[in-house]
Amino acid sequence: MSANVPTDIVFSFTGLIRRGGETGPHKDGWGIAFYEDKGLRLFHDSEESSRSRIAGFLQAYPIRSKIIISHIRKANRGKVALKNTHPFVRELWGRNFTFAHNGQLKGIKKEKLGGFTPVGTTDSEFAFCYLLGKLRQQFKTAPDDKTLVRAVQNIFADLATRGVANILMSDGNLLFTHCSNRLVYITRRAPFGKARLLDADVAVDFKQATTEKDVVTILATRPLTGDENWDAYAPREYRVWKAGETLFRAQ
Amino acid sequence: MSANVPTDIVFSFTGLIRRGGETGPHKDGWGIAFYEDKGLRLFHDSEESSRSRIAGFLQAYPIRSKIIISHIRKANRGKVALKNTHPFVRELWGRNFTFAHNGQLKGIKKEKLGGFTPVGTTDSEFAFCYLLGKLRQQFKTAPDDKTLVRAVQNIFADLATRGVANILMSDGNLLFTHCSNRLVYITRRAPFGKARLLDADVAVDFKQATTEKDVVTILATRPLTGDENWDAYAPREYRVWKAGETLFRAQ
Repeated sequence: MSANVPTDIVFSFTGLIRRGGETGPHKDGWGIAFYEDKGLRLFHDSEESSRSRIAGFLQAYPIRSKIIISHIRKANRGKVALKNTHPFVRELWGRNFTFAHNGQLKGIKKEKLGGFTPVGTTDSEFAFCYLLGKLRQQFKTAPDDKTLVRAVQNIFADLATRGVANILMSDGNLLFTHCSNRLVYITRRAPFGKARLLDADVAVDFKQATTEKDVVTILATRPLTGDENWDAYAPREYRVWKAGETLFRAQ
Repeated sequence: MSANVPTDIVFSFTGLIRRGGETGPHKDGWGIAFYEDKGLRLFHDSEESSRSRIAGFLQAYPIRSKIIISHIRKANRGKVALKNTHPFVRELWGRNFTFAHNGQLKGIKKEKLGGFTPVGTTDSEFAFCYLLGKLRQQFKTAPDDKTLVRAVQNIFADLATRGVANILMSDGNLLFTHCSNRLVYITRRAPFGKARLLDADVAVDFKQATTEKDVVTILATRPLTGDENWDAYAPREYRVWKAGETLFRAQ
């Protein structure tokens, strides 16, 4: 999620977590990161998200944020374990970077790393460490947004040559996204309407929870609602979001 | 907490969090880190721990771990904000390091850092970054435990010359502790008895929740129970715990 006002994600999260063992096969752990200023609220669990008590708690406890990244895992590389659940987190330039990835990246583990080392055994975390090492190598301190957007674009493109790179990443300011084969989004703004989840019998009237100025974009590998128009990314599309709007786009 | 079997901390946590706004003044946020293998479950909140809904949830949801670090904050340096809540976390050598600190360290922010940068504004997080930078400078990859214990001892001693350094730190394997003026501990082992919290009307019979082989050490700035004998650290005492037992001690 990328939004221009702190927004809770309970509605979308309620649909997503059903896919972790109930309506989908992604039952090998899950995680979510909520930015609050530069700080981060993190929740990780190696349980199926559809049965997780922490996930249940978060459905009842709306945490508001402008950037939220969540992931439900279907293990390919790396066993089912807390250390292998996304989103992964590292600090670079005094910012909390978070990273979630869908896909497999062949041969990535043969690359040399630059100061960030995986804790777990997934190729996703390795790719994240590889990416941050490259960034730190290029910039001793944080570059301006425009420069950073270009640098991330190049590294995402590098990763994408190795396999499937559906990626969500944030530094707490921007939301960097890349699609290899599966990424959709919807931007909700006034006039707000109603929507119903595909994975749970839950509907919402966004009018009740928003003001006229709110802009909220939700991204997912597959649409979460059935009665709204989700837009699909093109293959190899790179898009950077800020405050719910597209800041940069290339494919 | 340091233990030789995965143990939950619900009893101690129930007492501790009351000190965050109810029985104590540490109402400026709190956090807790549970190691699970090399992975980490983290919970941070800028709310008073005694009123926090996340803290309430954790009292009802026993997470078992061999190393747990928790902290309730009374803000001195750095405003009340999520980014300023302990324990702080950084990855070094593919390990999650966590760090909680009580006290103030004068002039620490004038030191040069080595690749780890604070996200927030506390002197505690700065000290942690300073420490990890020193470790990385000395060791490109993780040294053996004995070498690491000595290296941390030197850096803790350096920190302690600058003010009050009551510290709990872990790499997921060892629990490194230092006392300037306030740190107590109790090691519980068979035969287990009963205990009653000082901060809440809650008692426990450890016999009901343990086996004969369990060894569980709890550390805190002040005793959490009134009917057990807590041992006080000496000023400038450095002690490293592993599996509930003292691995190294110096003062």
